[in-house]
Amino acid sequence: MKRSIYDEDHEAFRASVKEFLDRSVVPHVEQHAADKAIPREFWLEAGKQGFLGLEIPEEHGGAGADDYRFNAVLFEELNKVNAALGSCVGIHADITAPYLVELGTEEQKKRWLPGVAAGEILLAIGMTEPSGGSDLAALKTTAVRDGEHWVINGSKTFITNGYSADLVITAVRTSPEKKARGITLFAIPATAEGYSRGRKLDKVGQDESDTAELFFENVRLTDDDIVGELDGGFIHMMQKLPQERLGCAISNLAHARQILEETLVYAKERKAFGQGIGSFQHNKFLLAEQFTTVDVAQAYVDQCVIAHDAGELTPIDAAKAKWWTSQVQNDVLDHCVQIYGGYGFMNEYRVARAWRDARVSKIWAGSNEIMKELIGRDLGL
Amino acid sequence: MKRSIYDEDHEAFRASVKEFLDRSVVPHVEQHAADKAIPREFWLEAGKQGFLGLEIPEEHGGAGADDYRFNAVLFEELNKVNAALGSCVGIHADITAPYLVELGTEEQKKRWLPGVAAGEILLAIGMTEPSGGSDLAALKTTAVRDGEHWVINGSKTFITNGYSADLVITAVRTSPEKKARGITLFAIPATAEGYSRGRKLDKVGQDESDTAELFFENVRLTDDDIVGELDGGFIHMMQKLPQERLGCAISNLAHARQILEETLVYAKERKAFGQGIGSFQHNKFLLAEQFTTVDVAQAYVDQCVIAHDAGELTPIDAAKAKWWTSQVQNDVLDHCVQIYGGYGFMNEYRVARAWRDARVSKIWAGSNEIMKELIGRDLGL
Amino acid sequence: MKRSIYDEDHEAFRASVKEFLDRSVVPHVEQHAADKAIPREFWLEAGKQGFLGLEIPEEHGGAGADDYRFNAVLFEELNKVNAALGSCVGIHADITAPYLVELGTEEQKKRWLPGVAAGEILLAIGMTEPSGGSDLAALKTTAVRDGEHWVINGSKTFITNGYSADLVITAVRTSPEKKARGITLFAIPATAEGYSRGRKLDKVGQDESDTAELFFENVRLTDDDIVGELDGGFIHMMQKLPQERLGCAISNLAHARQILEETLVYAKERKAFGQGIGSFQHNKFLLAEQFTTVDVAQAYVDQCVIAHDAGELTPIDAAKAKWWTSQVQNDVLDHCVQIYGGYGFMNEYRVARAWRDARVSKIWAGSNEIMKELIGRDLGL
Amino acid sequence: MKRSIYDEDHEAFRASVKEFLDRSVVPHVEQHAADKAIPREFWLEAGKQGFLGLEIPEEHGGAGADDYRFNAVLFEELNKVNAALGSCVGIHADITAPYLVELGTEEQKKRWLPGVAAGEILLAIGMTEPSGGSDLAALKTTAVRDGEHWVINGSKTFITNGYSADLVITAVRTSPEKKARGITLFAIPATAEGYSRGRKLDKVGQDESDTAELFFENVRLTDDDIVGELDGGFIHMMQKLPQERLGCAISNLAHARQILEETLVYAKERKAFGQGIGSFQHNKFLLAEQFTTVDVAQAYVDQCVIAHDAGELTPIDAAKAKWWTSQVQNDVLDHCVQIYGGYGFMNEYRVARAWRDARVSKIWAGSNEIMKELIGRDLGL
Repeated sequence: MKRSIYDEDHEAFRASVKEFLDRSVVPHVEQHAADKAIPREFWLEAGKQGFLGLEIPEEHGGAGADDYRFNAVLFEELNKVNAALGSCVGIHADITAPYLVELGTEEQKKRWLPGVAAGEILLAIGMTEPSGGSDLAALKTTAVRDGEHWVINGSKTFITNGYSADLVITAVRTSPEKKARGITLFAIPATAEGYSRGRKLDKVGQDESDTAELFFENVRLTDDDIVGELDGGFIHMMQKLPQERLGCAISNLAHARQILEETLVYAKERKAFGQGIGSFQHNKFLLAEQFTTVDVAQAYVDQCVIAHDAGELTPIDAAKAKWWTSQVQNDVLDHCVQIYGGYGFMNEYRVARAWRDARVSKIWAGSNEIMKELIGRDLGL
Repeated sequence: MKRSIYDEDHEAFRASVKEFLDRSVVPHVEQHAADKAIPREFWLEAGKQGFLGLEIPEEHGGAGADDYRFNAVLFEELNKVNAALGSCVGIHADITAPYLVELGTEEQKKRWLPGVAAGEILLAIGMTEPSGGSDLAALKTTAVRDGEHWVINGSKTFITNGYSADLVITAVRTSPEKKARGITLFAIPATAEGYSRGRKLDKVGQDESDTAELFFENVRLTDDDIVGELDGGFIHMMQKLPQERLGCAISNLAHARQILEETLVYAKERKAFGQGIGSFQHNKFLLAEQFTTVDVAQAYVDQCVIAHDAGELTPIDAAKAKWWTSQVQNDVLDHCVQIYGGYGFMNEYRVARAWRDARVSKIWAGSNEIMKELIGRDLGL
Repeated sequence: MKRSIYDEDHEAFRASVKEFLDRSVVPHVEQHAADKAIPREFWLEAGKQGFLGLEIPEEHGGAGADDYRFNAVLFEELNKVNAALGSCVGIHADITAPYLVELGTEEQKKRWLPGVAAGEILLAIGMTEPSGGSDLAALKTTAVRDGEHWVINGSKTFITNGYSADLVITAVRTSPEKKARGITLFAIPATAEGYSRGRKLDKVGQDESDTAELFFENVRLTDDDIVGELDGGFIHMMQKLPQERLGCAISNLAHARQILEETLVYAKERKAFGQGIGSFQHNKFLLAEQFTTVDVAQAYVDQCVIAHDAGELTPIDAAKAKWWTSQVQNDVLDHCVQIYGGYGFMNEYRVARAWRDARVSKIWAGSNEIMKELIGRDLGL
Repeated sequence: MKRSIYDEDHEAFRASVKEFLDRSVVPHVEQHAADKAIPREFWLEAGKQGFLGLEIPEEHGGAGADDYRFNAVLFEELNKVNAALGSCVGIHADITAPYLVELGTEEQKKRWLPGVAAGEILLAIGMTEPSGGSDLAALKTTAVRDGEHWVINGSKTFITNGYSADLVITAVRTSPEKKARGITLFAIPATAEGYSRGRKLDKVGQDESDTAELFFENVRLTDDDIVGELDGGFIHMMQKLPQERLGCAISNLAHARQILEETLVYAKERKAFGQGIGSFQHNKFLLAEQFTTVDVAQAYVDQCVIAHDAGELTPIDAAKAKWWTSQVQNDVLDHCVQIYGGYGFMNEYRVARAWRDARVSKIWAGSNEIMKELIGRDLGL
């Protein structure tokens, strides 16, 4: 099904993203995986190209695009290269930067946004804790007032960009008795005394991203480092959920489709028993099913993109997009691996890495179970 | 997800359809099921309301709406009453009438279309044969020229509206050696000598529709009864496929959603172990999944409706919509039955009938396997 | 996989059952479906053959077989004819009769068992109530003592054999304050004053069985009509669960396998596009999967049969067998219907009826959800 | 369901295997993964314990157990440690050694078997070629006679134990015109001139096994190095299929069950929203389903073990066991990962590795698609 949400401006932007990625990223992805990191060089170049500040106002160094479809195009192209690239840029530009843009004071915006747009200040977001998972009411990282300072203690885990981040928007408990409503967002610079990070985590997939545990030991910050309202963190995070989930959905699907299309090519070229393996009816039907699956999901995600642009995407509709595409991605890629046979189990094949990379999408940013719980509640159950 | 394809004209039309159905049909559905037939009275009233001629030009007694979204609204509302109603009206107005509108000569249009729009001439389409299923190249009903006549012999089966139809657009082999390219469409009136019908078939579901086998024994017709080109039947039928498949998809989904919404209500009201059964997490997640499934499919179908309105819906995209929604419908309804427990096995419950009604949607109008075969070929496999 | 649990005695018994069914039942199944009842004649003949008293001691007119494998053979053969036959005989001989055999007093055994074995006293079991489903703690039918009488009021629904039963073992609340532990089993004769039955329920499938609602209005019984302990009904019922669930599992699987084997034959004979439809790779793989599914499930059920014979089958292992085979049966039969195409939607085809018949197996005798709840608890969850 | 195929001798053997693994292997598995190899030390110790020669006659240094249940116990215990350990030992002792035992000449047995049983001669089997996958008729490695020598050229890939193997039983084309019937098995020593190996392949999982590509460039062997009949390789390989497939099935299931049981423990310990996550109904049902799935599959596999011991296991029944358990393993482990949440994506967790390890089981030793093709043919399709 031909997609209809993009016009020629978006496609021109896509071409420029693609040209940049083909030139500056694709030749180095093996190195990224070996290093478990995307190098700073990438961020600076992407910043120079204007890809990191789509939502940042022009006065603060961004593009001020005000059209989420450009974000969508960007994440589609990033995920065609690999899922980790999409995740890392997503955390920086699509998930974390908006907190500063929408909640930051003028001073904060001046302090941080130009660097964010330029790729000089790499962002991460610190929500998940070792003991807590998706349960924000159980948050244990605390900030205690001491004169004009806040003294922060605790730790966060599974932080994408965590090892190399310069600034981490971190959910911290400021009012112990108020449960979810006692959480404040602090922008913690990696240079702060008492800030440290664990090793890069050894993950099942997304080798190229640096995921790490972060530790805060008597990190001292001031009110100027609070993003948004004191004790308002939960609300602030809730408001960002539609975009976070939609970004996941766009990425899930673009990633799956790319590998599926490569698999189709492979299934035509690879011969067995004297014919292209894709022409065996089992594989033919299977590929027909996968392409249908992706097309159907794309229609829903595209509808979400349009709704989000109009400011009408609900957290629930975004939750549906998020869990559905996570499942689709994993199912599609598992079938792709099977079509590659033994090669699908070899890491030098993109399909093998993609399969590993995709697994986390059913878990992070609110697991599929959490999404279903929320949708169920919205149904009145 | 709020749908966006309809404007207030469509919604006004929906209200008028709904009002008509609530008044004239809903009170009689038990009788329809007992009779295995929707009575002529229904057709005449629906005709009077203008619901049967949406695609028929005004000069021939129709509405000339020229906007497929009205058809979509109509089929959504019909299917909310029951699937058989949607099928019967669909065969008449959405699948068969267009052959006459688009391929008929002026004389033919004058002869038939006013009656079709008025519900006086009930249509059916005769493709499937006892031995053949979806394989048009194996078609055995033949027409042999005899002077100015064509002499038709053969039989058709699984003909929706077959028992009560007045005019059957029938696929007939006119050139035995040309396989699929030797098929011609004849409009065979039920009054023709040699035309007969079998009993109403005893089906698993869709009790309200009269499905029958038709027999042609030396039925004599002339060139004036040919719809479209001699030997052009295969092409003509191919051209109608997108709309046929799309109509199925719209119906599948509207039917499933209606029952799903009723099931949600039931799951809230029905108590077990001291709580509404829908609030058990298993059911909560299950219902969350089903609503997501329906919403996602709806986005795709709506995109197809828009494409069809623009004349851009491909048979392949329609095939995807058709098989996907058939599967969705059956899966969703099976879960609905389970939520009703023992009542889901009782025919007096709508969910039980709906479950039976839905089964055929994976089989007819090209089985899901045929759809996948076509999609696979389109992928170059 | 060749089965190994039966020896030649069992196979000889199978032959005699099969001979009886072929002669006395198969010619009349259409009539049974039309009547929504298996006639008394069947019961008397089956009784004469000794098929209804496998577990009844010889002194009370039964076979005293003391080997559950004969029951298994019987239910396999009954289900090959149709699922309703298996259900009706199962309720009588396999589920209800054991209450009398194991819990009855000598006087009760003399009063009832000879008639049960002879097919003269048709049994049913009354557990489910309109409002309650699987929740025995919510049981509303009550017995109140009045002198030497118990006065029973209430109703039961979904009672297999309910319309024609002569004696109904009925779960009745005798101690309102004791919840599940305040339930007593009464043997209520259909001749009792105040006993009445509703119409035969109009079910999705199993047309041949007479399922009915039962009403008790001041039915007066005495202690002599109590089966087992006063207030001991819950425990008594729990003890019968392994056999009930195992009987379901045996039936589910025998029914599915029979239809699957018929479908294989059909798939070889039915031609499309010039070849047997079973030889299309999609169907070939599908049938390979279905046969594997049935064989794998059979191994588990056979293992349960052996365990049950040794008195070691746990309710949990039986619960696994019950839900698993219900799911298998429904999945397998849905695929079978699809292979039959349009004919699979016609009631004159066995596959169509079997598909309808099977649906209840995921619901009754403890729904699949209840089974999973119990298994989960057994896991310590 | 309590398993019944093992007696106390088997359980005593299990205890000795387990004691050995706990002591000699478990402390070193991290090192194995880092090295992509199980060290020779392991093989020698296992040999000393008598675990490598279960099927090798005592006169040739083995245990001559003549009871496949010991093999089954061994592979269950190995797979509880990790899947790669099971694979490597399986290739050596269960899949390759029997070729020598059953087909070898007395001279060959003396030459090789003592070393095989002692772990001094590590075996591999060379079937798959880069271009060919499962299609033996397309085999390209050739042996051409040159006087008393055979000159072998070609390559094999995906060879488990390939990097460290001392002797590789290799399928080689000796009669080009005879397709599958022109294949001969050669035992190629790694010390042969012209024998070389590629690097250890970088796989998605089973990090501990050394899988490699092998190259043969004018390797010169004689008739004494042929295992079995000249041109008889295809038949020889066919005869080994039941055991190979059964070994896979045993391993698949033991591996899945071990991780599932660990996951159950985790699901009880890990808290979220104030309760053990396993007690959420979704997880409770899910775990109930997984345990049922494993129990049901176990019954079938156990039945196969007994049949194999009796010499009655057919290749088709073994094919069913192989594909079914591969699917079960992958499905179960995917659910286990989900229960672990973010930790399920971290390689330091066993569940994460197990998930990666398992993926190949649907591909190797004849993919699930090949199994279904074979089963379908056996059905006459």
